[in-house]
Amino acid sequence: MGKEIPSRSEDYSLWYNELVKKADLAEHSDVRGCMVIKPYGYSIWEKMQQALDGMFKETGHVNAYFPLFVPKSMFEAEEQNAEGFAKECAIVTHYRLKNDPEKKGKLIVDPDAKLEEELVVRPTSEAIIWSTYKKWIQSYRDLPLLINQWANVVRWEMRTRLFLRTAEFLWQEGHTAHANADEAVKETKQMLDVYATFAEQYMAMPVIKGKKSEGEKFPGAIDTYCIEGMMQDGKALQAGTSHFLGQNFAKAFNVQYAGKDGKLEYVWGTSWGVSTRLMGALIMAHSDDDGLVLPPKLAPIHVVIVPIFRTDEELAKVSDKVSTIVKTLREKGLSVKFDNRDTHKPGFKFAEWELKGVPVRLAIGPRDLENGTVEVARRDTKEKQVMKLDDVASLIPELLNTIQENIYNRALTFRNSMITTVNSFEEFKKVLDEKGGFVSAHWDGTAETEAFIKDQTKATIRCIPLDAAEESGSCIYSGKPSGRRVLFARAY
Amino acid sequence: MGKEIPSRSEDYSLWYNELVKKADLAEHSDVRGCMVIKPYGYSIWEKMQQALDGMFKETGHVNAYFPLFVPKSMFEAEEQNAEGFAKECAIVTHYRLKNDPEKKGKLIVDPDAKLEEELVVRPTSEAIIWSTYKKWIQSYRDLPLLINQWANVVRWEMRTRLFLRTAEFLWQEGHTAHANADEAVKETKQMLDVYATFAEQYMAMPVIKGKKSEGEKFPGAIDTYCIEGMMQDGKALQAGTSHFLGQNFAKAFNVQYAGKDGKLEYVWGTSWGVSTRLMGALIMAHSDDDGLVLPPKLAPIHVVIVPIFRTDEELAKVSDKVSTIVKTLREKGLSVKFDNRDTHKPGFKFAEWELKGVPVRLAIGPRDLENGTVEVARRDTKEKQVMKLDDVASLIPELLNTIQENIYNRALTFRNSMITTVNSFEEFKKVLDEKGGFVSAHWDGTAETEAFIKDQTKATIRCIPLDAAEESGSCIYSGKPSGRRVLFARAY
Repeated sequence: MGKEIPSRSEDYSLWYNELVKKADLAEHSDVRGCMVIKPYGYSIWEKMQQALDGMFKETGHVNAYFPLFVPKSMFEAEEQNAEGFAKECAIVTHYRLKNDPEKKGKLIVDPDAKLEEELVVRPTSEAIIWSTYKKWIQSYRDLPLLINQWANVVRWEMRTRLFLRTAEFLWQEGHTAHANADEAVKETKQMLDVYATFAEQYMAMPVIKGKKSEGEKFPGAIDTYCIEGMMQDGKALQAGTSHFLGQNFAKAFNVQYAGKDGKLEYVWGTSWGVSTRLMGALIMAHSDDDGLVLPPKLAPIHVVIVPIFRTDEELAKVSDKVSTIVKTLREKGLSVKFDNRDTHKPGFKFAEWELKGVPVRLAIGPRDLENGTVEVARRDTKEKQVMKLDDVASLIPELLNTIQENIYNRALTFRNSMITTVNSFEEFKKVLDEKGGFVSAHWDGTAETEAFIKDQTKATIRCIPLDAAEESGSCIYSGKPSGRRVLFARAY
Repeated sequence: MGKEIPSRSEDYSLWYNELVKKADLAEHSDVRGCMVIKPYGYSIWEKMQQALDGMFKETGHVNAYFPLFVPKSMFEAEEQNAEGFAKECAIVTHYRLKNDPEKKGKLIVDPDAKLEEELVVRPTSEAIIWSTYKKWIQSYRDLPLLINQWANVVRWEMRTRLFLRTAEFLWQEGHTAHANADEAVKETKQMLDVYATFAEQYMAMPVIKGKKSEGEKFPGAIDTYCIEGMMQDGKALQAGTSHFLGQNFAKAFNVQYAGKDGKLEYVWGTSWGVSTRLMGALIMAHSDDDGLVLPPKLAPIHVVIVPIFRTDEELAKVSDKVSTIVKTLREKGLSVKFDNRDTHKPGFKFAEWELKGVPVRLAIGPRDLENGTVEVARRDTKEKQVMKLDDVASLIPELLNTIQENIYNRALTFRNSMITTVNSFEEFKKVLDEKGGFVSAHWDGTAETEAFIKDQTKATIRCIPLDAAEESGSCIYSGKPSGRRVLFARAY
């Protein structure tokens, strides 16, 4: 069928790239580092957006929209943040093209249209948003401010991977302002929980909640919390972050509020985001050598129905029965596709819908009509069963729930098998090289050790798990004392 | 209450600006020409998006996402289009900032990070999308391609107005590809109809469907169709456009398909879009001197309930009853806000919710509890009535329908009163100056006449209405023969 993809064991990276392209999720554009999200890929992203947006609104947040451009002087106000992103910013310097006097029909940048101040294409929106919050916040009555934005952002990347690392990507960024530190910390953790719930319940991807080390935290944050997932190749993937910003941005932009006592105080902030990177996580958490495996809750098509027929008459009879099934399943809230193309054989269609990760496939032919049955195939396990037509309405929704759970449990079992506790640097390197996954080890808490380990092994501290038990030990690298284990891994 | 806005008769333009700001819809940002869409304004835009997105999907379209940046050489491929937008393009020339060696903590553009080819921030996406379609279209089986994108675009504007004209705005842009001209024209007209239906049924704004003159059409299009609305001050507003692109972009990007006979042919295209400009239209079509008037179908809050009380005990009793009403109305699918703030008086709250355009206000106090009644106020007519509490569940949804219809009918009556037929240039100028609105007049069809009239009166040809009857006449300016009347107006 010309849509085969390489196997994961052959070349995991190539398998990923080919799957993304052949399942019509995304492709590289002719614009360096930027991707095109194709309709099928985008429809999965829309499902993610819908679920997340609902969860944000349930926790009291509202959406708004802030400018794409950040004037350079505004961008540099919070120095840590500016320094952190300066090396990967797209910069607008001119606002006009003009005809090239030397080449008819061609355009050149008009040197007379140079901006007085350059504009940074937002890599993240703290600067523009806090400069706006300054106008919105005067008194404690204006707090908390709980705002989210769905937007595109640009971070210039030299080495790109579809969904995982692109110069432009889509995301949501929450930016909240609070009257005190406690409330802001509570918000930071609440949003981390929202992300973890989304990852586990919708994406069927177990995640570890933790805190980043100083070296890995967001530029401008006091603390960065994260959720970390484990991909099938043993590499970790940061799937979402939630930052406690302290008063850093409030001080940079002079955002103060008058308390009940009239005293002026700097506002406390948080920010949190997830992006189209989640698409990469979703793919690498579940898919197999035949293509995408989608959890039903994020599948744009829940059920595909493939008719088996030789003649037009047979197709007509099958179609007649299928229309009843389609109606029944749609009434149950399911998205159903009837693939009645007469240009392709059933085997081709089976492979195509497997590649696209549709959770359940029904096949129905003349013999099924006689017997009042239908063949039901699960995408996750590849199991097939014969089901009575009368049972379809009640059993298919149940089956989808089963699949959602199974995909999660499978990923959980795998993830748990990929956490290895080590007590020496030798062991650490051996596990990384031979098994991969998370390595739970003692660390002395210094940036030096963190950097050394990263340099020598390419493994980074993914997080200090929130549920890490206190445990006395010694750092695998320096031998210095450590109070708890942290999780290292090579990561996307 | 400090939230008063000027009256429309005093200064329509100032009324608009103040309303937009004080009703918390949007504000100017510190980024030249860019606006911040505030949460309340954004929630109206979300309602618009939801309705439009549903209509696009019902007509077979799917969403996707294409890059923000367009390389200059790609941008200039379709010359008409490139020339049309060249003068208002934001240009990215560098991809990195670095520390300013002369000022600690400041950043400068890194001259070593100059792009080999400049990137245009998309003012519209035909170029990037058709360069992608080239890869997606080989045969007639790949057609039609029916894709929409929700995105931000940038058109550098010197004089900006919130929502109406901003350097960055949000929009959707549909881009479709077809095997023949007929199908593409049908699509162009279908989407015009979708826009007209949306404007009339959701925005409650009557629109005239028509075709643009050569001088007013989209750069790169063969034909531009539009919907034109009439604002309260007698100025027209283009609310949406749908373009038949012919084979212009297919030729510029060499997009050909093999027909059933194997012969290669250029693909036919359309594009169509509406933007956050619709927010401006919505405001100026219905609102009054007390603030926003929202059609219920786009109102983020349908019903606001204001308790009337003197003591905490009274508030408790009223709140108890209100919670039942809230529950009942929410079960009917309505969005209900209970404004139980004890920091503001009812009169203040009434004015605030009127400013924000909430269609129905309920006020309920101890006397109402005794009588089993509630006071119901309509935002559109300001009429009040006393309603039995038992009737609220059935009558409020009905009332919202009545309001939706009334707002539309009022705007329709006004719009119809603002179409004036004239037969001389004297009359034409008099109507424009003294009455405004659409002026229906004969035009000789030449660009010269169109330009002269625009130059002398600031009126442009809004459209050649699709339902314009054939009528022999002579051009009001040149006296030359004309086959039908066109609509002129001063416009936003």
